[in-house]
Amino acid sequence: MPKISEKGKQMPASPIRKLTPLAERAKANGIKVYHLNIGQPDIETPAVMLDAIKNIDFKVWAYTASEGTVAYRKSLAHYYNKLGYNITPEDILVTTGGSEAIIISLMTCLNQRDEVIIPEPFYANYNAYACQSDSVVKPILSVIENGFALPPISEFEKSITEKTKAIMICNPNNPTGYLYSKQEFLDLRALALKHDLYIIADEAYREFCYDGKEFLSPMHFEGLEEHAIIIDTVSKRYSACGARLGCIITKNKAFMEIALRFAQARLSPGMVEQIAGEAAALYTPDEYFTEVNKEYAKRRDILVSALNKMDGVYCPNPGGAFYVVAKLPIDNADKFCRWMLEEFSHEGQTVMLAPASGFYATKGVGYDEVRMAYVLNQHDLTNAMICLEKALQVYPGRTVADKNETVNTFS
Amino acid sequence: MPKISEKGKQMPASPIRKLTPLAERAKANGIKVYHLNIGQPDIETPAVMLDAIKNIDFKVWAYTASEGTVAYRKSLAHYYNKLGYNITPEDILVTTGGSEAIIISLMTCLNQRDEVIIPEPFYANYNAYACQSDSVVKPILSVIENGFALPPISEFEKSITEKTKAIMICNPNNPTGYLYSKQEFLDLRALALKHDLYIIADEAYREFCYDGKEFLSPMHFEGLEEHAIIIDTVSKRYSACGARLGCIITKNKAFMEIALRFAQARLSPGMVEQIAGEAAALYTPDEYFTEVNKEYAKRRDILVSALNKMDGVYCPNPGGAFYVVAKLPIDNADKFCRWMLEEFSHEGQTVMLAPASGFYATKGVGYDEVRMAYVLNQHDLTNAMICLEKALQVYPGRTVADKNETVNTFS
Repeated sequence: MPKISEKGKQMPASPIRKLTPLAERAKANGIKVYHLNIGQPDIETPAVMLDAIKNIDFKVWAYTASEGTVAYRKSLAHYYNKLGYNITPEDILVTTGGSEAIIISLMTCLNQRDEVIIPEPFYANYNAYACQSDSVVKPILSVIENGFALPPISEFEKSITEKTKAIMICNPNNPTGYLYSKQEFLDLRALALKHDLYIIADEAYREFCYDGKEFLSPMHFEGLEEHAIIIDTVSKRYSACGARLGCIITKNKAFMEIALRFAQARLSPGMVEQIAGEAAALYTPDEYFTEVNKEYAKRRDILVSALNKMDGVYCPNPGGAFYVVAKLPIDNADKFCRWMLEEFSHEGQTVMLAPASGFYATKGVGYDEVRMAYVLNQHDLTNAMICLEKALQVYPGRTVADKNETVNTFS
Repeated sequence: MPKISEKGKQMPASPIRKLTPLAERAKANGIKVYHLNIGQPDIETPAVMLDAIKNIDFKVWAYTASEGTVAYRKSLAHYYNKLGYNITPEDILVTTGGSEAIIISLMTCLNQRDEVIIPEPFYANYNAYACQSDSVVKPILSVIENGFALPPISEFEKSITEKTKAIMICNPNNPTGYLYSKQEFLDLRALALKHDLYIIADEAYREFCYDGKEFLSPMHFEGLEEHAIIIDTVSKRYSACGARLGCIITKNKAFMEIALRFAQARLSPGMVEQIAGEAAALYTPDEYFTEVNKEYAKRRDILVSALNKMDGVYCPNPGGAFYVVAKLPIDNADKFCRWMLEEFSHEGQTVMLAPASGFYATKGVGYDEVRMAYVLNQHDLTNAMICLEKALQVYPGRTVADKNETVNTFS
């Protein structure tokens, strides 16, 4: 039999999806499983976007330009300029989802074994993108005690080597929900300019900021024109994960020229998606976002409040996205999540969570943390929290919580 | 300014698209340009496929499984089993176009600097996929004199090193239109088994075979279960290039497990495309293919017949796909193609061709050859041939044709 490549063997299997067979078995046994483990929103896609699909009127489903259609890029530029990005359609490369945008960006910026610094916990697939592009992730620990704020710049400085080419952030953050502040961006800018590093900013959750907090992008900071590479996608903004429609935004022409070559090799992003994306960018009513944000904020409040009322549980109150990372009074989150699916149920129900270990590159960190996506309606979310509380009460691997310690850091 | 990666700099710019600005300029000057340079068919997408898009009835445009939906993979298995592939839905991984299928396959099969043998001329983007996946293309020359048949197996044997992991073929071939015979497959099978090599077969043009000739796939040959990796796409089959919907087919479970990890990293293929693809696989009437094939065969006849009537021109009569490679009495096809766009017109018209140099890895070979895609209607195609004939009569770099030499090899 012919052999499999070393890279293939090193590609990480999806840590988020690895519990799926256990959930399927639980369901087969008649148990209702609340899925807090994945970032697939239940929110409806805007009607204007779905209507654009239904109203297609072409006869030939043709390639588009590799960089995306002019019409779609124009509509995106319009959208981003309302947010103060100050770009033209030429600063946009349309991609097949945010995932392709990241892979192309890493391939364009980093040589083999070059390093990208990423605050951890981070979106698990970043490990896969680094593996695929032969780059190396250098994690820097952000901690639950201060809500997963940006680690001190001194920690970044310590990690920088001659192989460091980029810093990657996700803002608002998946998995922590943390929203980076103006001061944190100023610090990052100083660092990027000092060491001539790219700042790759994954802004998939841009539209989801709560409590009146302001979203900031590297595009808002002068001096980063050559350094800022923005990753975006319609997946979360319009609850359109299955569209696989993303983009790269940058004013760095040299980067764009090379990124386009990778894009040309795969010929074209989807045509129907760009038609739908254009309609969404131009015609989604502001109320759509107001309503969706209101809904997510309520859910976050339900989740965070319920979690912090549970004995021994600590969950920071994040400023954006639709995730939280919570610390549980348990021996091991991987074990606990399995146990929830294999051995526990409360009134015929259980909850599927994502162990946070999959979001850390450093081994042994975050072993008692889980990520939850609040992509269920408020009623289901409330039930899921009741389930989780009951589960923690009877879980055999429960640890004695040091309530004082967590309460003291609750800010 | 931060640096660009070496890989990025090595990524080839698309040789097919590089003349595009010249064509745009010609059009701006009022000249009608017949595009024979690209493989974007003008044939209409089947109505059942477009109707499936118009009839979507979901509310949330969600991720699908990374390997593709069960429904779509079932419909594909049904489709392929009618062709004698004898597969199950588990043998199919749905991809974002044939391009992603090739990149994932190369990454799964080849270590860095491992070699894939490809008969040349070959689809130019194979160079880009090899660059992106850090593998090395070892070309073996096929020649116009025998219609670009498979080079002798002894040539393959000479090229095989310990780094050779795969042979890649495109059947029917882009750019030559050549359709591989049963004997050629038997030879390839013996070679693959002897040296334990993957056979990666790009079958994008499977449905386009003429003169009653039979299409054959590695899937039709016993003993290749672990070796055959099939690349497919709906792009040409249904004239749906903009769907970006392809797949990998293999019975090799070890390969599939690793290929799935690459697929999981990019989350999901497009959802709407899979709905449309399912409808196309199940409900496209046989007459659609009969009609399309009849149309393409007529066009091929027009093209091949017109070309061979031109003084000094030789064009083999290919058995499939919708391309021909023709030898012209010219000094240099790159120069000639530029000249056609920049300096020539006949009754306000000219033709855009793809210089064959972009399809050869070996430098200096095929310098007087061009690829033509017959993706224009018969009327336009006839006009394009008149234009080309006139152009060859006045082209300053015309060479003296050795008519005897080409006529003798005309079989």
